[in-house]
Amino acid sequence: MVRNLKAAVYHGREDVRIEDRPEPKPGKGEVKVEVKYCGICGTDLHEYYEGPIFIPTQPHPLTGKKLPVIIGHEFSGDIVEVGEGVKGWNVGDRVTVDACIVDWTCPMCKRGMTNYCYNLGFNGLAADGAFAEYVVVPAYQLHKLAPNVSYEEGALVEPLACGVEGVRASGMKEGDTVFIAGAGPIGLVTLLAARAAGAREIYVSEPMKARRELAKQLGATEVFDPTTVDVKKEVLERTHGIGVDVAFECVGYEPALNSCIDVTRKRGTICVIGIFPKPVTFDPFSGLVATGKHYVGSLAYEGVDFDISIALIADGRINVKPLITKKIKLDNLVEEGFEELHKHRERHIKILVSPK
Amino acid sequence: MVRNLKAAVYHGREDVRIEDRPEPKPGKGEVKVEVKYCGICGTDLHEYYEGPIFIPTQPHPLTGKKLPVIIGHEFSGDIVEVGEGVKGWNVGDRVTVDACIVDWTCPMCKRGMTNYCYNLGFNGLAADGAFAEYVVVPAYQLHKLAPNVSYEEGALVEPLACGVEGVRASGMKEGDTVFIAGAGPIGLVTLLAARAAGAREIYVSEPMKARRELAKQLGATEVFDPTTVDVKKEVLERTHGIGVDVAFECVGYEPALNSCIDVTRKRGTICVIGIFPKPVTFDPFSGLVATGKHYVGSLAYEGVDFDISIALIADGRINVKPLITKKIKLDNLVEEGFEELHKHRERHIKILVSPK
Repeated sequence: MVRNLKAAVYHGREDVRIEDRPEPKPGKGEVKVEVKYCGICGTDLHEYYEGPIFIPTQPHPLTGKKLPVIIGHEFSGDIVEVGEGVKGWNVGDRVTVDACIVDWTCPMCKRGMTNYCYNLGFNGLAADGAFAEYVVVPAYQLHKLAPNVSYEEGALVEPLACGVEGVRASGMKEGDTVFIAGAGPIGLVTLLAARAAGAREIYVSEPMKARRELAKQLGATEVFDPTTVDVKKEVLERTHGIGVDVAFECVGYEPALNSCIDVTRKRGTICVIGIFPKPVTFDPFSGLVATGKHYVGSLAYEGVDFDISIALIADGRINVKPLITKKIKLDNLVEEGFEELHKHRERHIKILVSPK
Repeated sequence: MVRNLKAAVYHGREDVRIEDRPEPKPGKGEVKVEVKYCGICGTDLHEYYEGPIFIPTQPHPLTGKKLPVIIGHEFSGDIVEVGEGVKGWNVGDRVTVDACIVDWTCPMCKRGMTNYCYNLGFNGLAADGAFAEYVVVPAYQLHKLAPNVSYEEGALVEPLACGVEGVRASGMKEGDTVFIAGAGPIGLVTLLAARAAGAREIYVSEPMKARRELAKQLGATEVFDPTTVDVKKEVLERTHGIGVDVAFECVGYEPALNSCIDVTRKRGTICVIGIFPKPVTFDPFSGLVATGKHYVGSLAYEGVDFDISIALIADGRINVKPLITKKIKLDNLVEEGFEELHKHRERHIKILVSPK
């Protein structure tokens, strides 16, 4: 007898349905996880209002999957079934999941840089995800939650891992001065990761008052409203006139990128995490050659970023709880989740969804 | 009695005069060098035809100097007089000179990154240079030529140091695959430096036939004419479809930069050395975030690049002699040097000027 599970299924733009689907069975090398919480990611919103973007409309080269697909990829839960050949994992283990699907033939995956896979695919986009009662994932994606890390915190590990990856990709060193453009979910996890990495001073630029206040609460040295103050002037005044060592662009917006370039010292680094919808104008002379600035992109995470994130939450160096602004039920994902985030961005950072 | 020396004096655009000037005396911490050879740099040409660019028209913050100024900064010679307080240098020492003037109060100079000084100035631009019989320089700029490095080779150390700095700034590692856009003087010294650094394969794109041939002679794996072949296709075919590890932009031209971006693998590095006269259009999504590519600029050199360059020439790992395409006398600098390079770029890489 096939049992059913309840899941949020993406059929197309503005068409996500809560449906009954056949309950999946873990195959070889896979486990089945009972989902406790799954966070709503900006990517989910982009797929809902502007997609399909990452959700394949043709069979994905790695998974063979295309829409309709169960979405959701920031989650925690318990292992409830272990497939053939899986070693080191047991029923009852509390876990979170690095949703990146590995292509073992890809030259980037083989180097451990799975986030730059040439066939990039994630659970919840290119395979069924975790806005559901249960999800089946390959065992290599699992990361054990420390005993004192709650399921709510566990669902925040995935976004935090994006901030950790950004900080690691930037080469930021202990004692560096930092600028962050944007205090949305990505800006804030980057702030948390930069603090934990020993940043000396962290300046944040963010137009929304509530987000500026949260950034301050989470450890920003100072926050600036770019709509009312000259951010370049303020940051240069506080950094000996030369600028910060590392800037993080967490918006995907040309003026924010220019702010990052303006406030970064010669031979400093600009790490771009924001998703840009269109090209920008860039001056390689002043931006690169004459100033020796470095630029690096950062996308998602590698598996190790999950272990780092869990450890930093577990021992108290990072507190992700203030990022949770609402908890809802799966049945209300569209109205209380997507639509609420769309209408009231200033009220929210992370909404967690529980399937039951 | 004040003796005179012969020197090429820059008075303004297309106004360089061979003049008699009072012979300089080395002050405290300075030495006087009798110039043997001084190469013509692309920067000299830019100053002559489009300048003043780097030559100050107001007193330079470091040197107090403004035009008219004696130009020339790629040189070798003998120490003929040692000023007060100079230790470790003697009359008769064969030397070349790192022309970067250090600002000991600058936060970048204090970190050893003198090429990113906030008051950047060079001999031959912001202070009198070496298209002259004698030049006075601070002793901290001196680098001793190995006994088997000729004065001609000694004058090539300065441009080679730019290539060494580029390779070091790029983070290129032994075994990396490399692409170089442009085989002019900077592209070729970068090629030499990348070969000496253990690059596995080096692909060069260059429209001029003579320069492509020289690149091949100097060790390029393959050379491509971007006006007749699809460089992206050719390089990707030779690099497992993913591209090279490191690309060097040595032109300062948007299509060349785009070539570099196109042929560099995910998480690879694009090092920009070319001087761009204007901004470009750049896509931070495909160029940075989605592909994790790194960008770094490289300008001139640090002092250590001179020691590296001299050592690599001295032990035969780098042969700079094929770069010398003509030797002329100082009296003919404008006609046989600047004008010849301007009219017949395809015939030349480096013209050396001797004052006598």
